[in-house]
Amino acid sequence: MTDLSIAKRSVVRVSAGRVEHVEDAVAVERPLAISIDGRPVSVTLRTPGHDRLLALGFLAGEGLIRNRAAIAGVIERLADCVDQPDAIDLTLAPGTVMDWSRLERHFAATSACGLCGRAHLESLRQGLRPLPQGQPLDPKSLGELPDRLRKAQATFTATGGLHAAAWCDERLEPAALFEDVGRHNAVDKVAGDLLERGRYPAGAGVLWVSGRAGAEIVIKAVRAGILALAAVGAPSSLAVEIAEHANMTLIGFLREGRFNVYSGFERVRTS
Amino acid sequence: MTDLSIAKRSVVRVSAGRVEHVEDAVAVERPLAISIDGRPVSVTLRTPGHDRLLALGFLAGEGLIRNRAAIAGVIERLADCVDQPDAIDLTLAPGTVMDWSRLERHFAATSACGLCGRAHLESLRQGLRPLPQGQPLDPKSLGELPDRLRKAQATFTATGGLHAAAWCDERLEPAALFEDVGRHNAVDKVAGDLLERGRYPAGAGVLWVSGRAGAEIVIKAVRAGILALAAVGAPSSLAVEIAEHANMTLIGFLREGRFNVYSGFERVRTS
Repeated sequence: MTDLSIAKRSVVRVSAGRVEHVEDAVAVERPLAISIDGRPVSVTLRTPGHDRLLALGFLAGEGLIRNRAAIAGVIERLADCVDQPDAIDLTLAPGTVMDWSRLERHFAATSACGLCGRAHLESLRQGLRPLPQGQPLDPKSLGELPDRLRKAQATFTATGGLHAAAWCDERLEPAALFEDVGRHNAVDKVAGDLLERGRYPAGAGVLWVSGRAGAEIVIKAVRAGILALAAVGAPSSLAVEIAEHANMTLIGFLREGRFNVYSGFERVRTS
Repeated sequence: MTDLSIAKRSVVRVSAGRVEHVEDAVAVERPLAISIDGRPVSVTLRTPGHDRLLALGFLAGEGLIRNRAAIAGVIERLADCVDQPDAIDLTLAPGTVMDWSRLERHFAATSACGLCGRAHLESLRQGLRPLPQGQPLDPKSLGELPDRLRKAQATFTATGGLHAAAWCDERLEPAALFEDVGRHNAVDKVAGDLLERGRYPAGAGVLWVSGRAGAEIVIKAVRAGILALAAVGAPSSLAVEIAEHANMTLIGFLREGRFNVYSGFERVRTS
């Protein structure tokens, strides 16, 4: 991560009656306006860095593009004053047809959902094709994953304030890890990275996330063709339902070598 | 919390090569459609329970209503099949003028932001009046807050999967605690509770949150007239900037009797 992701602040640390003035590192959160052919699509609060991957992964996770070839050009502009959002404009490739009706939602929900304006749960599942079976996962390697990934979380180590997401291949080798103040943004960056490398949908591998497994993250992972989601935190009921529907393996509470499997248990090798 | 907030699931627990089939409790996540006079406003993924407070607090946090009297009636309807959202419809009181333009945002961000479609950061601060100074806070009582509140987090204890938010008065006595899979929802429920009790804006007290302090939570707290935000996790850079702008005390990493103060230090008593 570059320095753009960390800001230094003077803080007062209080501990057992002792008061110290110290310098602390906080994770940067700034708005990014995403547009397509000049048409506003979204303003998201994100940690600067990998904005191109964030924008590409966001569009793919929403089902708006299916591959990297849909986008011909990317123009990024960092704002020169604090009251303006940074901006990224994507140019559609000739012949790419965009389903703009997907953008016509009316209001932003505040619950990290990204599902706003979809009046029926059924529509959440629309276009989610069941995942292929793929290779079984080794439970010992799964248990070791958190320690291996923690070493790659540079900004979290500095600030204690970031979510992370990583894609690991079928042998559970971490291939890409991204951090962001928004947990969905970190997942979008992973998806954008798969797009850039021509591996979207992946049809393999595991998405590891540092937080909880909510419905929206399951949907993003299924769209990215990732066969398993492994979360440090708990899954929600809706996350489990959608994972079952999509034939995804959903793992929660992956900590200290232990984990719970909520769906798709047959992908975890047990002999 | 009622049973509606917890679902039982059969899971497979893997630990040190041992595989057990056990029953686990997961936090329920279901969509709630909020409408005003029959007009769709938002669909949010939330944990059922206190939907009325969630809807009221959400509208107030968005700056759409300023007090409980703006709403004459509330009709709640739990869906009778899994593919339909639950619904809540609010009726405006005669004479209440709603600024519908605030609802005309174009796309849902996925980063837990609730700021989507606001093209300029300046607009985030619009209508945020600086908070009054109020009573100083006792650092010892602040340090003891997490332990006291943990005992009140019933669903978290069962599922390990919920965020919590609580309003505490100026002596740091917890007055209301709510849980939800969405951290912004938990804060909206607190704000709705203040509205129902005729204490919105509060002009006093502390909002405690179990997670991180992002910009959107600072904005909701400032709108609710709460003088300090105390988070178990880290603040973001934008959260610190907005808190400074609004004369709010922002506390992060409140754990094990210690904490960091990022803004408004003069409200923490140090003699």
